[in-house]
Amino acid sequence: MNAAVSGVAPGPSDPGPRARRYAFLGPEGTFTEAALMQVPGAPDAECIPMNSVPAALAAVREETVDAAVVPLENSVEGGVSATLDDVSFGAELRILQEILVPIRFVLVAPDGVRLQDVRTVSTHTHAWAQIRGWAETNLPGVTYVPAPSTAASAVAMLDGRGGVSTQGLGYDAGVCSPVVVQRHPELQVLAEDISDNEQAVTRFVLVARPDATMPAPTGADKTSLVVPLWEDRPGALLEILEQFATRGVNLTRIESRPTKTHLGDYFFSVDIDGHIQDDRVADALMGVRRICPRTRFLGSYPRADRREVRVAKHHSDAAFIQARSWVDNLKGQ
Amino acid sequence: MNAAVSGVAPGPSDPGPRARRYAFLGPEGTFTEAALMQVPGAPDAECIPMNSVPAALAAVREETVDAAVVPLENSVEGGVSATLDDVSFGAELRILQEILVPIRFVLVAPDGVRLQDVRTVSTHTHAWAQIRGWAETNLPGVTYVPAPSTAASAVAMLDGRGGVSTQGLGYDAGVCSPVVVQRHPELQVLAEDISDNEQAVTRFVLVARPDATMPAPTGADKTSLVVPLWEDRPGALLEILEQFATRGVNLTRIESRPTKTHLGDYFFSVDIDGHIQDDRVADALMGVRRICPRTRFLGSYPRADRREVRVAKHHSDAAFIQARSWVDNLKGQ
Amino acid sequence: MNAAVSGVAPGPSDPGPRARRYAFLGPEGTFTEAALMQVPGAPDAECIPMNSVPAALAAVREETVDAAVVPLENSVEGGVSATLDDVSFGAELRILQEILVPIRFVLVAPDGVRLQDVRTVSTHTHAWAQIRGWAETNLPGVTYVPAPSTAASAVAMLDGRGGVSTQGLGYDAGVCSPVVVQRHPELQVLAEDISDNEQAVTRFVLVARPDATMPAPTGADKTSLVVPLWEDRPGALLEILEQFATRGVNLTRIESRPTKTHLGDYFFSVDIDGHIQDDRVADALMGVRRICPRTRFLGSYPRADRREVRVAKHHSDAAFIQARSWVDNLKGQ
Amino acid sequence: MNAAVSGVAPGPSDPGPRARRYAFLGPEGTFTEAALMQVPGAPDAECIPMNSVPAALAAVREETVDAAVVPLENSVEGGVSATLDDVSFGAELRILQEILVPIRFVLVAPDGVRLQDVRTVSTHTHAWAQIRGWAETNLPGVTYVPAPSTAASAVAMLDGRGGVSTQGLGYDAGVCSPVVVQRHPELQVLAEDISDNEQAVTRFVLVARPDATMPAPTGADKTSLVVPLWEDRPGALLEILEQFATRGVNLTRIESRPTKTHLGDYFFSVDIDGHIQDDRVADALMGVRRICPRTRFLGSYPRADRREVRVAKHHSDAAFIQARSWVDNLKGQ
Repeated sequence: MNAAVSGVAPGPSDPGPRARRYAFLGPEGTFTEAALMQVPGAPDAECIPMNSVPAALAAVREETVDAAVVPLENSVEGGVSATLDDVSFGAELRILQEILVPIRFVLVAPDGVRLQDVRTVSTHTHAWAQIRGWAETNLPGVTYVPAPSTAASAVAMLDGRGGVSTQGLGYDAGVCSPVVVQRHPELQVLAEDISDNEQAVTRFVLVARPDATMPAPTGADKTSLVVPLWEDRPGALLEILEQFATRGVNLTRIESRPTKTHLGDYFFSVDIDGHIQDDRVADALMGVRRICPRTRFLGSYPRADRREVRVAKHHSDAAFIQARSWVDNLKGQ
Repeated sequence: MNAAVSGVAPGPSDPGPRARRYAFLGPEGTFTEAALMQVPGAPDAECIPMNSVPAALAAVREETVDAAVVPLENSVEGGVSATLDDVSFGAELRILQEILVPIRFVLVAPDGVRLQDVRTVSTHTHAWAQIRGWAETNLPGVTYVPAPSTAASAVAMLDGRGGVSTQGLGYDAGVCSPVVVQRHPELQVLAEDISDNEQAVTRFVLVARPDATMPAPTGADKTSLVVPLWEDRPGALLEILEQFATRGVNLTRIESRPTKTHLGDYFFSVDIDGHIQDDRVADALMGVRRICPRTRFLGSYPRADRREVRVAKHHSDAAFIQARSWVDNLKGQ
Repeated sequence: MNAAVSGVAPGPSDPGPRARRYAFLGPEGTFTEAALMQVPGAPDAECIPMNSVPAALAAVREETVDAAVVPLENSVEGGVSATLDDVSFGAELRILQEILVPIRFVLVAPDGVRLQDVRTVSTHTHAWAQIRGWAETNLPGVTYVPAPSTAASAVAMLDGRGGVSTQGLGYDAGVCSPVVVQRHPELQVLAEDISDNEQAVTRFVLVARPDATMPAPTGADKTSLVVPLWEDRPGALLEILEQFATRGVNLTRIESRPTKTHLGDYFFSVDIDGHIQDDRVADALMGVRRICPRTRFLGSYPRADRREVRVAKHHSDAAFIQARSWVDNLKGQ
Repeated sequence: MNAAVSGVAPGPSDPGPRARRYAFLGPEGTFTEAALMQVPGAPDAECIPMNSVPAALAAVREETVDAAVVPLENSVEGGVSATLDDVSFGAELRILQEILVPIRFVLVAPDGVRLQDVRTVSTHTHAWAQIRGWAETNLPGVTYVPAPSTAASAVAMLDGRGGVSTQGLGYDAGVCSPVVVQRHPELQVLAEDISDNEQAVTRFVLVARPDATMPAPTGADKTSLVVPLWEDRPGALLEILEQFATRGVNLTRIESRPTKTHLGDYFFSVDIDGHIQDDRVADALMGVRRICPRTRFLGSYPRADRREVRVAKHHSDAAFIQARSWVDNLKGQ
């Protein structure tokens, strides 16, 4: 997409685009920005924080940026519903990459503040929910103050000239992602890895316009779809899922969402194992598209965990090729 | 298949082959021969009665004849199992036409015999089962004598020189199909339409070698398959049927048959609505063939009842073409 | 059923009835009679050959006999379709036992006849189909003469006073089951085990009235059903099969049969693994009966091969009991 | 649960509990509070705003409150993921009622401020995403300032003594739900119904402990479940959905969620049509519970839209009763 960074030949482990300008769900220092930093080339590119997922995706559609990073699942700072809804309607978009970010929190304060001094803590409400157990144990009696994002609770302490202070903020310490401290080393870290669940991971996607080059198949891929359900009746969803099952295509995520315009009509946001270049995926997509002609393809892209997709022999490309050849021969008789 | 009789261009209502020599499950005068007489050109062709279904089909495979007519369903004189088993193994064969024959019986005897004189009746045991109700009412106390076929019970009365007698046969009257009387008008008909079920119909097929020209699609077609089931487990059959259901393909007949070599392994003999030239059928066949690579195609041919196959819009050829075009466009991105 | 022959208490491995009078598809010496001889108590009971399957089953319904043995699958002498159709309509019947009979043939002739003397052979046409390969190799140029049953071809040689002759019969030798020779040792066996497929087995069932005691579960059982299909549409059969699959119930036989009264309407004759006393079978039957209120239960009975039915843990009786208890507790809240 | 309001007999349109103390996802003035106000008795009860969904649900579990209102779908202020995750683990909870709240926004400012004076607007980021179109048209060039909730942007203008001012807040106007204005009429409404999508609705649930009385069936009910998926393989989800489909139970919402402890394992949060007292629902729950023994029941409760659930005749209670009676009779034979 972008000649300026294309000096490096893209390898199979580097399917990302070469965009110069990226939007992300801001502000700076959020987990979304941490996700963006995993996109090849992004650390050296122009990265623009946006107020909302729709704003970030609008910037892609309007060609203000080349691509955007937005949350797709389990985000600690919200936005998942907005992403699901936004990519499902309006001008088409394409997912080029998925990015997993471990959810780690640090407790930060101005220099000199000790852990036992902390009486009030600020962060995003979702983050607070994830460190509540730690706080009750380590900061008994602490008061919580909401902030619009995790980063905001820390950034608000900075005066921009190297000074750190909580004066006038109404709280003693903030909880944010480690990336904020990397950027602002003047922040003092009072405690690390304070999440109640150390395994927590959140998932983001890099979204571009449909003319972006689709990542090549790697054997460990995902495909994302939007399937509007035309009717609210028993078995309708099943009929769609059978299109996947009869080709041995596994679902890795499914979410029904009410369409905004008609209460009671739904669409399904679905991730499946495999790449549209895999015969079993292409064949399943044909089946789904026949049943739901408004089905939208959001992209095929490598799995972030690189876990190879196991395919039964009778759903392999070889099986499709042989079966198609058999039928074609018969049809020619 | 045969240039000698191909002076007439075949139309949609005349998909049959132009064979010179036909085998059929004999002897002469059976319902199978009545079925053969419905094949275009057959009344003027050489028609050879065979002792068994395997013998009739062997004659096709060995090119002794061009095609054979054998029972496929509900035959009053048996042979269905033999047909199912025989076409499922050995050299491949093709069904070119299905033929429905109403099951009508006539009671025949030598001239001068009256209905009230009949004390013993002979016919095929299956035929006897179908007229038993009539016989109990109209021939109280009658004794039944088995015959190897319906025709045999009548033909045995003929001396070949125009004479009709039951002397030495051990019975007074025979029960056969009306076609025997058409050929041998010297037989006296004592009663017509004596079947207990006047709606009964039996189904036959015209079978040829795989190099025969496949009948063109008519919009009212059937396709016959043999699907060997590789494993005896819950859901295995379901997995195959879902390949049909996900393409909107209706089953019109299904029969599981134990394979002869391994008790407990099964194959399925299946008829479906539609022609292999229909996209939904071709797509379903691909799916079945992937799961069961030994799946055998027995042919696509017009339904004998000419009843048009109704296809939901999303399973129509147009839906397949649009969906395939959509996927192909995406794959090209 | 009958105390007169029940001196021995029936154990789990001996579920058969204690009937005094049995009907079977005759004549004497058929494979059906061989099947009947496997029924506990039958060798000492009165056994009545009948001309047809409907006649044998009518004798049960009319209480002329206590039970009947008829073919259910793959019978070398036909009758399967008649059995399927007859048990599916009219007064209800119950299958109490299934019986497997190996298909073995012997070639018999009068004393003094040598194998090389045999020019013409008679037997049932289906039997002839199964020894055709042997005959072509061992009796080159032999001529076939149809007989109404395998036994008939042999029994016709007997004069009833110990003499054996083919004079006036029109053939030199017959092909029948070994049981005929056991009963008539005056027949000379020219060749044994002449079936082209040495593994062939045919399946029979013992049928009684619904008031017969149902065989207790053994862990290796079958259940037979008749399921009329109310409508000829894609997925209708699938809907029924899913009732079995969702309870882990395996199908071991399925056959669609046109109903006699309306061409195009079908019923399904189905055998499933398991006993109606198994929770998963009872639950599946409930589901099928809801969809097809005319579903007919033909009985639960031990598998002839005694092969234990493997059941996944989540389809076991224990799983049903736990799940039902969970739901019942919730409903009581 | 609450004697104080129990003088009135509860009717079908009033299934809610009679709790004295309610928690809700705060602060005051949010859409969650608007949902709580629809709970019978709640306007007169003690209603306690909580910082997070987990905090609100913990208050229920710890018996600090009788019940809590939290978002379940499409919430404009987030919290849905937290609700899904929280009710799925830990001590069991029960949903007693679902509540729909139309998403309506008003633009509020201190008295005297005119629409054309507004240069900066504050609200929750998700709310901003939903009025962005209106803002671009009616407030060209406006700057957005995030707030932790919609209510917070308005409440911050109040001095608690009837005064309204934006001094020191960094913005000129706030966007909140109409309920804030009802409570604080001193706020001036500059614009009403400014949502880009006038049909938007968000869904909340009233959650209590499992000993709460389950709402009686009304014919227009929902049931919520948590189904942990034991394995990540093709068809696993399908197997569960077939348990619903074979009983004619419709899904109205489905969402897969990664479990927090093992990346790659999923659970499904599912809403279905019908009440556990409906036979088809109880039967489906049994099936799901057998396959996934950790399945969790979250409650059966009336649909907020009162839309009656249509049930095919063969999935009605009457069909279940008849089928069960048929099977029970057979088992007794």
